Amino acid sequence: MIKVDLNCDMGESFGNYVCGLDGAVAPHISSANIACGFHASDPLVMEKTVALCRENGVRAGAQPGFPDLVGFGRRVMEVSTDELRAMVLYQVGALKAFCEAAGLKLQHVKPHGAMYNMAGKDEKMALAICEGIRAVDPSLILLGLSGSKLLSAAEKTGLRAAREVFADRAYEEDGSLVSRKKPGAMIEDEDEAVARVISMVRERKVKAVTGREIPIRADSICLHGDSPQAARFAERIHAALEEAGVTIAPIADVIAG
Amino acid sequence: MIKVDLNCDMGESFGNYVCGLDGAVAPHISSANIACGFHASDPLVMEKTVALCRENGVRAGAQPGFPDLVGFGRRVMEVSTDELRAMVLYQVGALKAFCEAAGLKLQHVKPHGAMYNMAGKDEKMALAICEGIRAVDPSLILLGLSGSKLLSAAEKTGLRAAREVFADRAYEEDGSLVSRKKPGAMIEDEDEAVARVISMVRERKVKAVTGREIPIRADSICLHGDSPQAARFAERIHAALEEAGVTIAPIADVIAG
Amino acid sequence: MIKVDLNCDMGESFGNYVCGLDGAVAPHISSANIACGFHASDPLVMEKTVALCRENGVRAGAQPGFPDLVGFGRRVMEVSTDELRAMVLYQVGALKAFCEAAGLKLQHVKPHGAMYNMAGKDEKMALAICEGIRAVDPSLILLGLSGSKLLSAAEKTGLRAAREVFADRAYEEDGSLVSRKKPGAMIEDEDEAVARVISMVRERKVKAVTGREIPIRADSICLHGDSPQAARFAERIHAALEEAGVTIAPIADVIAG
Amino acid sequence: MIKVDLNCDMGESFGNYVCGLDGAVAPHISSANIACGFHASDPLVMEKTVALCRENGVRAGAQPGFPDLVGFGRRVMEVSTDELRAMVLYQVGALKAFCEAAGLKLQHVKPHGAMYNMAGKDEKMALAICEGIRAVDPSLILLGLSGSKLLSAAEKTGLRAAREVFADRAYEEDGSLVSRKKPGAMIEDEDEAVARVISMVRERKVKAVTGREIPIRADSICLHGDSPQAARFAERIHAALEEAGVTIAPIADVIAG
Repeated sequence: MIKVDLNCDMGESFGNYVCGLDGAVAPHISSANIACGFHASDPLVMEKTVALCRENGVRAGAQPGFPDLVGFGRRVMEVSTDELRAMVLYQVGALKAFCEAAGLKLQHVKPHGAMYNMAGKDEKMALAICEGIRAVDPSLILLGLSGSKLLSAAEKTGLRAAREVFADRAYEEDGSLVSRKKPGAMIEDEDEAVARVISMVRERKVKAVTGREIPIRADSICLHGDSPQAARFAERIHAALEEAGVTIAPIADVIAG
Repeated sequence: MIKVDLNCDMGESFGNYVCGLDGAVAPHISSANIACGFHASDPLVMEKTVALCRENGVRAGAQPGFPDLVGFGRRVMEVSTDELRAMVLYQVGALKAFCEAAGLKLQHVKPHGAMYNMAGKDEKMALAICEGIRAVDPSLILLGLSGSKLLSAAEKTGLRAAREVFADRAYEEDGSLVSRKKPGAMIEDEDEAVARVISMVRERKVKAVTGREIPIRADSICLHGDSPQAARFAERIHAALEEAGVTIAPIADVIAG
Repeated sequence: MIKVDLNCDMGESFGNYVCGLDGAVAPHISSANIACGFHASDPLVMEKTVALCRENGVRAGAQPGFPDLVGFGRRVMEVSTDELRAMVLYQVGALKAFCEAAGLKLQHVKPHGAMYNMAGKDEKMALAICEGIRAVDPSLILLGLSGSKLLSAAEKTGLRAAREVFADRAYEEDGSLVSRKKPGAMIEDEDEAVARVISMVRERKVKAVTGREIPIRADSICLHGDSPQAARFAERIHAALEEAGVTIAPIADVIAG
Repeated sequence: MIKVDLNCDMGESFGNYVCGLDGAVAPHISSANIACGFHASDPLVMEKTVALCRENGVRAGAQPGFPDLVGFGRRVMEVSTDELRAMVLYQVGALKAFCEAAGLKLQHVKPHGAMYNMAGKDEKMALAICEGIRAVDPSLILLGLSGSKLLSAAEKTGLRAAREVFADRAYEEDGSLVSRKKPGAMIEDEDEAVARVISMVRERKVKAVTGREIPIRADSICLHGDSPQAARFAERIHAALEEAGVTIAPIADVIAG
């Protein structure tokens, strides 16, 4: 049986500010990456988001980010590996407490924004993040870009890892994402995006931006919930995968085989 | 055997800013109240403070505060009980993760500053704090002002509690602290402070500001570590108590009897 | 000629978070209260909001708030009068710089949220705010609740002041707002709200919640821009006032007579 | 007459946290770079620091930094040029208001930490900073590293500029600072530091780390106030320069010739 996880960032509201259509996307995904109060979210939002996960049978993950609320954690920050490990430990620890208070087990950790991108290419950062995660709970799963340094760092630190692919992004021949600054970086046609996802999951390959087919492994598909259109696409991809004989299952089940 | 705990706020530095003589006071206390990043501290400071506790055999506690870094958590903030429960849960959860990463068990929680003072007189706030603590771990001990609403709320929520007294503060006849705005609020003579502490611990009574003796229960003495003089006083009170036949022991041991 | 100002809070977005329909409400108001980065907004949002005011011929005002982003400045905070004066000075100074950079003159200052409400009843706070405003520029106009301590404090400190009324709030007989916790606090019928505003501006009276008519002075009407409905109401009240022979003019013109 | 300015960072305390010996160093310098609340300081500290400048006849400058309080503005952050210009405008505008409230004219702007270092090598950033400064007041003086992009950007934007040198840092042959990661980066011998400063000011040359003499221009010497030793060195360099016939004067006087 072929299984894949559908993940989406959730819980990115902050105080009076609402961000994301969490309620609309929750029924269609299997794992949620929940912001932890540094780049987005606050304690009350975290509590509510964990409750929303429980109601929808969505597995909860922590999404630690840089301490840059005004930049939404998307700006490169050069932090030391000590600072990085400690800020991951802090954020994951806080979210784990909310999960346990709600009777849920924290499933995974996916770094956010610039932290995700930087660590994907920088092994020292990736190791610091994995050490922070491991220090909270060695049974947590790291969710990172398929083929990135985050995944190899998880392996080195003895952390289970899941490989993430994007429905709406083009790939280079080496399996990295095409930079958003280049033409063709985004897959804007929904039919094409659906077909690519099914190919990545079932055939373990995708057509790179150059036209050549490359091998790729997908444990989880990254979806978005920041617009009504994005939420509808989550529903569509969910249905299309099931129609193609793929079972939607949380990360923990997918990597358990 | 008469036992008492000596507690002190620790880990109040922040980034480049150093606050408190943690290294000097650690050898003389049995329990530390560690700031959790809202009114003071940051993830790296929390990690180092937990390590300092481990090195000195000091039991670690969490000290959640209001999200008011510039006011050091000392300014009254009217937060909802939902906000309060969630911010306690968040902070205690984060510190618990650092303790577990260091192989320590988080022992207790003592709210900080305005949160401590407000909840001492406001049962709804006290209950919200106790619910937040309980949600993280029902075996945690609440450390609160002897005779305050925090202690009765702990009892109501089924949380173990420890009664705290102050070496350097005068008491009203009803057992509350004399307001700092009144004359005689502070016990400035060190000899007198030592004598009062020994009386509170051994005789379970103290002379109120009116001159009348009142009953008081002391599981823990609150000390300070923000000046060389304060750190020396911690050493002195430690020695004086032992000389008076009192055993210095962490809160968990004291309330276990 | 009877004149009145229409004011609305603007520039409350923050980083990635969008708040308010500034572009929709701007064409219908004469004065904007622009958040200054403490309870909402950031430097880029402030720059863009000042540009929006210039494009729409709206006069710019500063809206300082408490340093409580997660609480949107709506939570009571007990700050000292020194802290209050300095935080007003800082925020008003920052917005003044954006106005001058855009070739606009900063017209007025209206405190936000809990700061507005607290100072409306607390003369010491009101005086501290007025001193902070005066220190930036003694020609600035304070915009405060009609009949409140903010207005009397402005008079004491030699600051010009404008009296604000609410289209959607009921009044007590003493001219204060009916607490939102009481029934009947909000005027939910739009026709009634329009009629009340015209009465307050033209007749200088309004029917209190008790049914009795009371005198009231209105230099400016507070509108909202946080929903499509609110923006439409701004357009409607603008038109209704002009139809009733009232000229919509910025605060500075209204109080100049 | 040869003149030089002595500058020092000041006003870096924050809330309860004290940083720097401002009172000790103020009598020995001619210009202060005052933190503006992003990487350090708060409104009350800014007000007090401006008052300290006035008491000591020290000219006030603004020191804007990145919004990174926990990193003290020392961490590289990749911000857009729009964000950078706006954050400089905001901070300089806020400090200007405090200066005007105290009857002082804001003299100069010196970016802080990572912003200073990054912009010294990145012309786009340097231009964005200069545009932000110019938007507040085109008569402000930019204080930047002698020979850096900040100075050339000031010239391009029509801003006056002053060239800063360091008493305690070694120079490469191209006039740039030797990286702190290299041996010999710091001039630790005080006698040598004094001799180098006098040479830079009087002879307009300094011995590079390679041993070769290079030309250098010094309008201002950067001093430190973060330790008793640093404050004493400020006094010593002040006296040594005067003894060598150099007049200590604020930046505005030095560049006026």
